[in-house]
Amino acid sequence: MPMETGLIFHPYMRPGRTARQTFQWGVDSAVHCDKIGFTSMMISEHASQIWENIPNPELIMAAAALQTQTIKFAPMAHILPHQHPAKLAMMVGWLSQILEGRYFMGIGAGAYPLASYIHGIKNAETTHLNDMVRESLFIMEKIWKREPFFYEGKYWSAGFPEEEPAETEEDEQHLLANYAPYGGGFPEFAVTGFSANSPSMKLAGERNFKPVSIYSGLDALKRHWEIYSEANIKAGFTPQRQRHAVSQTVFCAETDAEAKRLVMEGPIGYCFNRYLIPIWRRFGMMDGFARDFGVDSLDIDLEFLTDHVFVVGSPDTIVEKLSHLFEQTGGWGTLQVEAHDYYDDPSAWFTSLELLSKEVAPRVRVPGESLIAA
Amino acid sequence: MPMETGLIFHPYMRPGRTARQTFQWGVDSAVHCDKIGFTSMMISEHASQIWENIPNPELIMAAAALQTQTIKFAPMAHILPHQHPAKLAMMVGWLSQILEGRYFMGIGAGAYPLASYIHGIKNAETTHLNDMVRESLFIMEKIWKREPFFYEGKYWSAGFPEEEPAETEEDEQHLLANYAPYGGGFPEFAVTGFSANSPSMKLAGERNFKPVSIYSGLDALKRHWEIYSEANIKAGFTPQRQRHAVSQTVFCAETDAEAKRLVMEGPIGYCFNRYLIPIWRRFGMMDGFARDFGVDSLDIDLEFLTDHVFVVGSPDTIVEKLSHLFEQTGGWGTLQVEAHDYYDDPSAWFTSLELLSKEVAPRVRVPGESLIAA
Repeated sequence: MPMETGLIFHPYMRPGRTARQTFQWGVDSAVHCDKIGFTSMMISEHASQIWENIPNPELIMAAAALQTQTIKFAPMAHILPHQHPAKLAMMVGWLSQILEGRYFMGIGAGAYPLASYIHGIKNAETTHLNDMVRESLFIMEKIWKREPFFYEGKYWSAGFPEEEPAETEEDEQHLLANYAPYGGGFPEFAVTGFSANSPSMKLAGERNFKPVSIYSGLDALKRHWEIYSEANIKAGFTPQRQRHAVSQTVFCAETDAEAKRLVMEGPIGYCFNRYLIPIWRRFGMMDGFARDFGVDSLDIDLEFLTDHVFVVGSPDTIVEKLSHLFEQTGGWGTLQVEAHDYYDDPSAWFTSLELLSKEVAPRVRVPGESLIAA
Repeated sequence: MPMETGLIFHPYMRPGRTARQTFQWGVDSAVHCDKIGFTSMMISEHASQIWENIPNPELIMAAAALQTQTIKFAPMAHILPHQHPAKLAMMVGWLSQILEGRYFMGIGAGAYPLASYIHGIKNAETTHLNDMVRESLFIMEKIWKREPFFYEGKYWSAGFPEEEPAETEEDEQHLLANYAPYGGGFPEFAVTGFSANSPSMKLAGERNFKPVSIYSGLDALKRHWEIYSEANIKAGFTPQRQRHAVSQTVFCAETDAEAKRLVMEGPIGYCFNRYLIPIWRRFGMMDGFARDFGVDSLDIDLEFLTDHVFVVGSPDTIVEKLSHLFEQTGGWGTLQVEAHDYYDDPSAWFTSLELLSKEVAPRVRVPGESLIAA
């Protein structure tokens, strides 16, 4: 099976963009990606960052629902401690029905500390947040099951009523609405991992969630699969590389030189200089790259990233770079391309995405898999 | 100023409709109403009822946002005790920005008791729910103000951080996203009243919220305006009838006979027989009509409603019926037409809405107003 392509939309819009522009760019991106064969679009949920300015990914999914055919959508992630689990469970179920199953659900305990603060969680300890996540999942699964319960929890209370009997044969006022996910089960859950010894990858393995790696270096990525697959096997499942998605900064143009120039001088370069390089340094997110190349993380600048960390070039070059990464790591199922702010002129960006989907992805395969198939 | 027309979308879809059909019908209705000059579309939020199967009105608004030009949207209402106020405040602010101000916000303490139960509120007392509403509004207004605070409340905690200083001149990772409503203030709030001595109408007057009456008889409607305007004046405001919206079951066709037949035999009649007549009886919502006409509420059936309570007929007949109601009550600003399930064949329904907007509304005026204008 060849690699699939997906989009991950944070969306890294430059300050000054209006909410309407951000929203429009999200919907246009979904429609374009659906048309060119991308199989998924993940959308972030952030409360604090001006550069990551989508508080409600579900609004973009709803706006794109009737204009797309095959692409799947996922919040990446709904931050469970920030919202009432009964309310969230019904929204997720309803949206999954609207999308007729083209939906999976990224879940998270927190993103930036300021976002937790806005939702009333000060100096949050990881154990506290994880405790909230557990209770939230417990409640959501009960809501989706639609069996009577009432639960008074530590953080939230919730229930599901028994359907009352009809008063007359014709009477339908007792009937309960059904907001379970499409098909009646639970949605597929997904979690993202970043750091080398990511506890999210362990959780994903244990609970058989879809693992999503935010690319932070070769070593970290290899460790992600090790941690995930070990926990997954231990829990009685069979790990499938096809389910593993890896997000990366990727840009494809006709030639290597043109691709590099467009990255350095365009919206991607602008975003890294203004936002991602400073914040990656602040949260230690450069360390994996620094280790991979034996350099000081403070020496990593835009050009270093473009040449060594991002996947940038012509279709042939990108196939070669990805095949090399696949050889070293064992490969993955979906390349989740990090979206950027090409709102003013989408042409180079949409061309890049189309080349990735049509020229690159079909030529990249999980190592050994073709032998098995033969 | 002539009467305006709006839609109120509960949406009264018959059991068996899929979520996608309901959603599609909402979006199509928004686009049609925008095109024919409706000035607002209110959408309910319900967790329990199969006949009122929209848990998240904001998803329909988002889907219609880029396809509409002038129509305003309002949840009617967001049930404040069911959700975290910080999360809700940011969603509302972001959606208001996406709609570039074509937004106002219905708020409520609860709808059906089963919906409260699902969100963990068992045997809810009105005072308890109102206490939650007050705390929710307090938090939402603080979030929208974007000034630093941290509040540990009885039901929720929330905060807004201080923006941190930049680390370098170029650095933008400290900048906070802005999810205050479009224009930076608070959204216009609206509340619905039903019973004759509606406490919601008093609240609306005191806080200068937009009053929305769910039509439940002539006497009740007159009382609504009395209660609202008295409280509004006492609080130092000037009540404006133009802000008052009244929801009604309205259907317009070429002739009176055709309009009555389409109501009795079509989706409106089906919904009343199966759902609204039983549930109106159960919650005492027939009592106002029974009082108006001196009949027993159990004797009120579909034909009685069609002839005496609904506003049904040719354009001329509807102008006459509404003008009569306006004379008796003092009139109102917006006729909020109750939407029904014409998903299978929208033509008669869309024609009715267009006649109401173009043939009826321009001929209906608040009594005395034309004299003042002249």
